[in-house]
Amino acid sequence: MIIKKPKINLKSIFPPVVWFRQYNTENAVCDFIAGITVGLTLIPQSIAYAALAGLGPEYGLYSSLCGGVIYAVFGTIPQLNIAPTALLSLLTFTYTNGAPFGAANAAVLLCFFAGLIELVCGILHLGFLVDFVSVPVVAGFTSAGAITIASAQVKNLMGLSFNGETFIEIWKNVFEHISEAKLWDGVLSIVCCSVLLLLRQIKDYGTPPVSESKEGSRDLKSILKTFVWFLSVSRNAVVVLLCAVMAYTFSLHESKPFSLTSKVSSGLPQLTPPPFTVVSNNNETYTITDMAKYLGSGIFVTPFIAILSNIAIAKAFAQGKVVDATQEMLAVGFCSLFGSFLSSMPVNASFSRAAVSNASGTRTPFAGIYTSIMVVLSMTFLTPYFTYIPKATLASVIICAVIFMVEVSIVKPLWKINKIDMIPLVVTLVACLIIGIEKGILAGVVVDALFLLYYSARPRVEIEEVMNDSHNYLKIMPDSAVFFPAIENLREKIVQTTNNKTDKFQTVVIDCVHISRVDYTSAKGVASLCNDLEKNGKSLVIVNAVVDVERVLSGACSDKCIFAKTDQDLIQSLKDFPFRAGSVATVHFDYISDEWYKDSEKGTNL
Amino acid sequence: MIIKKPKINLKSIFPPVVWFRQYNTENAVCDFIAGITVGLTLIPQSIAYAALAGLGPEYGLYSSLCGGVIYAVFGTIPQLNIAPTALLSLLTFTYTNGAPFGAANAAVLLCFFAGLIELVCGILHLGFLVDFVSVPVVAGFTSAGAITIASAQVKNLMGLSFNGETFIEIWKNVFEHISEAKLWDGVLSIVCCSVLLLLRQIKDYGTPPVSESKEGSRDLKSILKTFVWFLSVSRNAVVVLLCAVMAYTFSLHESKPFSLTSKVSSGLPQLTPPPFTVVSNNNETYTITDMAKYLGSGIFVTPFIAILSNIAIAKAFAQGKVVDATQEMLAVGFCSLFGSFLSSMPVNASFSRAAVSNASGTRTPFAGIYTSIMVVLSMTFLTPYFTYIPKATLASVIICAVIFMVEVSIVKPLWKINKIDMIPLVVTLVACLIIGIEKGILAGVVVDALFLLYYSARPRVEIEEVMNDSHNYLKIMPDSAVFFPAIENLREKIVQTTNNKTDKFQTVVIDCVHISRVDYTSAKGVASLCNDLEKNGKSLVIVNAVVDVERVLSGACSDKCIFAKTDQDLIQSLKDFPFRAGSVATVHFDYISDEWYKDSEKGTNL
Repeated sequence: MIIKKPKINLKSIFPPVVWFRQYNTENAVCDFIAGITVGLTLIPQSIAYAALAGLGPEYGLYSSLCGGVIYAVFGTIPQLNIAPTALLSLLTFTYTNGAPFGAANAAVLLCFFAGLIELVCGILHLGFLVDFVSVPVVAGFTSAGAITIASAQVKNLMGLSFNGETFIEIWKNVFEHISEAKLWDGVLSIVCCSVLLLLRQIKDYGTPPVSESKEGSRDLKSILKTFVWFLSVSRNAVVVLLCAVMAYTFSLHESKPFSLTSKVSSGLPQLTPPPFTVVSNNNETYTITDMAKYLGSGIFVTPFIAILSNIAIAKAFAQGKVVDATQEMLAVGFCSLFGSFLSSMPVNASFSRAAVSNASGTRTPFAGIYTSIMVVLSMTFLTPYFTYIPKATLASVIICAVIFMVEVSIVKPLWKINKIDMIPLVVTLVACLIIGIEKGILAGVVVDALFLLYYSARPRVEIEEVMNDSHNYLKIMPDSAVFFPAIENLREKIVQTTNNKTDKFQTVVIDCVHISRVDYTSAKGVASLCNDLEKNGKSLVIVNAVVDVERVLSGACSDKCIFAKTDQDLIQSLKDFPFRAGSVATVHFDYISDEWYKDSEKGTNL
Repeated sequence: MIIKKPKINLKSIFPPVVWFRQYNTENAVCDFIAGITVGLTLIPQSIAYAALAGLGPEYGLYSSLCGGVIYAVFGTIPQLNIAPTALLSLLTFTYTNGAPFGAANAAVLLCFFAGLIELVCGILHLGFLVDFVSVPVVAGFTSAGAITIASAQVKNLMGLSFNGETFIEIWKNVFEHISEAKLWDGVLSIVCCSVLLLLRQIKDYGTPPVSESKEGSRDLKSILKTFVWFLSVSRNAVVVLLCAVMAYTFSLHESKPFSLTSKVSSGLPQLTPPPFTVVSNNNETYTITDMAKYLGSGIFVTPFIAILSNIAIAKAFAQGKVVDATQEMLAVGFCSLFGSFLSSMPVNASFSRAAVSNASGTRTPFAGIYTSIMVVLSMTFLTPYFTYIPKATLASVIICAVIFMVEVSIVKPLWKINKIDMIPLVVTLVACLIIGIEKGILAGVVVDALFLLYYSARPRVEIEEVMNDSHNYLKIMPDSAVFFPAIENLREKIVQTTNNKTDKFQTVVIDCVHISRVDYTSAKGVASLCNDLEKNGKSLVIVNAVVDVERVLSGACSDKCIFAKTDQDLIQSLKDFPFRAGSVATVHFDYISDEWYKDSEKGTNL
């Protein structure tokens, strides 16, 4: 049940022990450029995702603060940056929205619990749990999450204000309040979205700073290309900055055409334990137990999703190396746990930041430290100006990030390759939209598990009538292991087939070539099958059983049928088909030749 | 997902259409003797089980009334008799005990719902659901049920009175109230249990009335042997009768040494619909929805257990014939549904009655009609005397029946054959005793399902380094299908192995001989594996894939690795190992010989 064997050594727990020895100036330059570039993506993202989680922008920056540093110590994949993400922010909103002890307190506490659970999963090597979430289910909930997030931002695009969490509520409200839409918010949104999408597109015309093709050539064209690439990658920062400057200019003229972000506390967060006890405004005291009850399943769902995406992203950027899932869980666990002491909301790696980091040529996780420094700088000098960021701009940033998370592209190959996998995809997508992300994932996982159980319960069975001069028999070959849910069906099939063709053959042969395991129930079922066949004057022979299967089957049937050498019918059938269950574990059907029969008469191959 | 293909014809729905044509005097005599014998077992059983369900003795008889007749019309296995059983009575008690609208109303309504669900399961062919309950789980909950029932009767053995449902509550109460034990109840219990166990033992010295060995010889010894057999089989009736006569005699002398059964309403039950609306004593009205909510999961658990035991018992007595699970579900469904119009509590077949019936030589389900007639006669003439049956006697009857349901005998073979199956057994047993039968079964089924999922997630993989003169490669052979939970682990294993032995071979060969199905996720995983290997300068070849697997894998990998003929490494590896994925679906490793290579150069076997 372990994804990786435990290795308690320094190299494994502190990866810098390995990479720091080979750290040189080139690595440092690459990491610096990448760290700054990721920072330019991260800062506007974290402000926007904080808004998505229903918190003030400062919480986004608090959450981005220590991920870079901690991951540099514990992480293994240079491209990863642990900070707020769209999906986790959505989950945070779902679980903390309207908490009577304050949404921010709830979010920080959720981050603390998530970190704890992630560490526990790492220590107990529970990474295998994410194996039970299939690609279609991941595609389903990611898409549903993106759709929900985008829908929730539609109100900010148009300057509407209403409450509503689920996909259906939100759209109902949008249509009800559509007449209250604010002109300038709408205009700004259209402009922002257009610019963001345009800047996203031009990336292909640019070149990353440390691209191999550019090496050595520092002419104007290549500098321009690098500039285009930077502009594209830092598009969120550019758009947010421009809009904030514009709103600030308006405000100098006492005009306020856009809905703006609320007041932001400036400066660095205090290093303080997560809120284990909270006294609310109306003087009620909430203990950690009360608050944990309020967060409910979020305490498990949030870290599960965090681990799931983290391992998936790590694998995508591992470049042929094996991802140490345990180490990744520990890394993200420590990031969340330390983060919660700096008022962080739940965090994990984001695919978009990892892609930017990868394109910027990151060499080691040290790049994260530069990203963290950028966050500190922005917190120190920029927070007073955050209040001038229009809500519509943040909404545009979020929407232009998440619409590409809707995995439309999976549908075609899925349909082409394996149509049945459309079912978990559609179930997850629809369930996530209607009953919420966390229950939707559960629904998808359950559907997937039911498929697996169904395959265990109903292996395909090949039934062949073998008619030779020397022996007639009915050959039964299940295509996979026969466990307890499968045996009664198999038994029934065999009894029915033999009853229908009662005079044709006296022997039923089960070919176990595809059977790797049997359990007590199926062994008992085979024993009952022996009895059934015996009553109808037939005998049962087991061939090609591996040692384990043979041991279990002979244990259950020993005094029943196969080993009952005195049984008249069995002797007869063994004469026709001269080998017995316990003796043929290694003999393949295809090898049965005249020589074999001759040998068997001499007793050499029994 | 269907246990049997639907066959809508008269023969299948009304089995008497078949057997009634061949019905002759001999059959009639056999059925008569068997019907009467079963009746002698059934009547005391049903009074006792009614007490176990917390109802008056008359409800036991009401429940035994129509099972025989209805099963004669719809049933297929002559030995089965649908009436109260220990396990269903325990469940009935669990779900109806203390119902504010009356336990009897609740029990009858539960019977009605159970019948409905059984019919629905029959019509929708949901019999396959019982396949997911393995033998160890059945053994676990049957044993736990027997232990709970026996424990609950201990108070009646000693004349104690207290409330308590679960195993732990009951024994705690027994020890607290032990000082209140009544002498004569205790003495009577010891005598009754001894006599019952003794009479049970002497069965082996007797001979059933229609035994073949007895045929034709009607001497004294054979008559005596038949008498011994009858005495043993009707031991419950004998003991109950003797005790009731004794208590009646005491009552004539104004003495009442034993706790007696409460007053019994005499006569036949009224034909009336189940209580769809009930007005309670304190004038509250309960609608069918209120009552269904009160019964809760019992509405599904009760019919599920009924179907489970019914199909298991039917299979045990089918004698090599195929049991029509659908027809059995319809039969027991009709019995319950009709029964609920005659104030029946939930019913199904009992193993003990089926064994008695079998030993008595039943020929057709018509025997059940004689059993029903006996029940009618006892209801008409005996009910006034039921009140004289001592509670201790009924408790003795129950205990002596259920102690043999504790499946101690399964432990030894289970340990010998497949130790891992001890886990579902122990989990089910302990969970049933601590948190109740219905949750305990669920726990057992979940544990079993987790095992199946684990096997799906972690197939054993054989890794072999093949070093020939002509080609070196790493052969990977999973022992069963590779579904989504398995692929990441397999991928990691392969990448790790190849990274460790990087210079030894350039080609990884996955042998799909045991793989019958793949899904989208595992196909995508194979594609990622291709990429991983490519990055490490290695190529991947798939062999022995069946058509379906080949189609899915080639769909996912087509433009990635296996079909990338231009890739330098792959061409090199294909030179060493000259066949490609899509082309070798039917070639077995064992056959790769010099001839094959020669042929392959000519292109005849590609």
